[in-house]
Amino acid sequence: MFKLESKTRYSETGQDGIIHHSSYVVYLEEARIGFFRHLGCDIIALEKQGIFSPVVDISIRYLKPLYAGQNIMVEVILKEFSKVVFELEYKIFREELLVATALSTHCFTNASFKPIGILPEIIEKLKQL
Amino acid sequence: MFKLESKTRYSETGQDGIIHHSSYVVYLEEARIGFFRHLGCDIIALEKQGIFSPVVDISIRYLKPLYAGQNIMVEVILKEFSKVVFELEYKIFREELLVATALSTHCFTNASFKPIGILPEIIEKLKQL
Amino acid sequence: MFKLESKTRYSETGQDGIIHHSSYVVYLEEARIGFFRHLGCDIIALEKQGIFSPVVDISIRYLKPLYAGQNIMVEVILKEFSKVVFELEYKIFREELLVATALSTHCFTNASFKPIGILPEIIEKLKQL
Amino acid sequence: MFKLESKTRYSETGQDGIIHHSSYVVYLEEARIGFFRHLGCDIIALEKQGIFSPVVDISIRYLKPLYAGQNIMVEVILKEFSKVVFELEYKIFREELLVATALSTHCFTNASFKPIGILPEIIEKLKQL
Repeated sequence: MFKLESKTRYSETGQDGIIHHSSYVVYLEEARIGFFRHLGCDIIALEKQGIFSPVVDISIRYLKPLYAGQNIMVEVILKEFSKVVFELEYKIFREELLVATALSTHCFTNASFKPIGILPEIIEKLKQL
Repeated sequence: MFKLESKTRYSETGQDGIIHHSSYVVYLEEARIGFFRHLGCDIIALEKQGIFSPVVDISIRYLKPLYAGQNIMVEVILKEFSKVVFELEYKIFREELLVATALSTHCFTNASFKPIGILPEIIEKLKQL
Repeated sequence: MFKLESKTRYSETGQDGIIHHSSYVVYLEEARIGFFRHLGCDIIALEKQGIFSPVVDISIRYLKPLYAGQNIMVEVILKEFSKVVFELEYKIFREELLVATALSTHCFTNASFKPIGILPEIIEKLKQL
Repeated sequence: MFKLESKTRYSETGQDGIIHHSSYVVYLEEARIGFFRHLGCDIIALEKQGIFSPVVDISIRYLKPLYAGQNIMVEVILKEFSKVVFELEYKIFREELLVATALSTHCFTNASFKPIGILPEIIEKLKQL
């Protein structure tokens, strides 16, 4: 399990006074990049080599509102993976309170967004989790 | 069925060259607001009266990438509703091509984000769909 | 002079109830891309050829607040240009009301963000304005 | 002088591979909120009492590009203030490198965005800087 600490921003609020639900997608992405960095895989650098890891699907359940300037923690767990896709599970906490849960599925593609299978070195790392 | 035309923005792209997956959440929200406006219900004005319609959950499936400056169309259909929640189904098209599908569930709350049931006048309108 | 019509989005509001000041930067950018498209120059496509037009500086004066779901119009005028940089002037209107003014300076660079001078074909087009 | 450490996000990049220029506006805002928090003034909480501190004008000079996942530091200095407005000066650094400078002017308003003068307790704190 990988954990990333973050902080909600003022600019992420909406006129309803709470953090806009689209910002959670960004929190999940930052946690996912951290999860791969922790595995020794730099997703951002891979893109410069023409290898991408786009989102196939994402789902988020919002349990409690978040407000500007709050410290949050995002947990990432590998749920499952095949040769083609991997699925991650997320929990977002504010202090001890679970505020959202999420799932996302990803593949690996070339620069034309054609699937190329999960990179063998990443498969090896995922197997060790 | 309600349809909203929109256009992807340059600022919504990422270093991978395609529209960031968090922007779809915004496209869906604009279509949802339009869907309610079309029903005669102004979600934005309701918030100023202390009535909110937050997202309970959302899921998006990404089928084809979108690029900056593309015209898109978002279709919204009411999938189901109870006295407490309603679920919407979305399809995003670029020209004739289906690029994403999505679902979202919402409730109505007071300004403290406590559920208050779907407003009776909205129930009446949803029943007529 | 080039004019672009747009509409403020719910997700661009903040907890103060008005459109966040960072969204104006996006409105200006969309108007600038439109200005160049109108001149026959596709800034977005140029980037795929390794030619970029980054912002050197930007300044915005906020005169009146904007709210979610309002129709706006962004006017763009070429203020001046040299062989290296060009400056644009913007006015943002809501109906007849001037809500913001802005200036931005840009150059052209290669993919390493080294200035390459304004492209000769663009100089020609700017001269005709 | 107040300093805030932050980190650029993947979602803030554009198709040109660098952090979009609108994200700097958000970095400045987070640093400004931190500057006031450091002075003992919680700008976010003030808004819940109907006191706002909107941006009157902002200008940013972009010196060097930023990329995803980079650590940055934003310095904030009070430049000047009157009974009605205050001006802040900012420098954004990546490691030792100055990547952007900025200025912003702000006032204080009531919930109708009518100027109310800078709050006396804030004037006192600004005088001590």
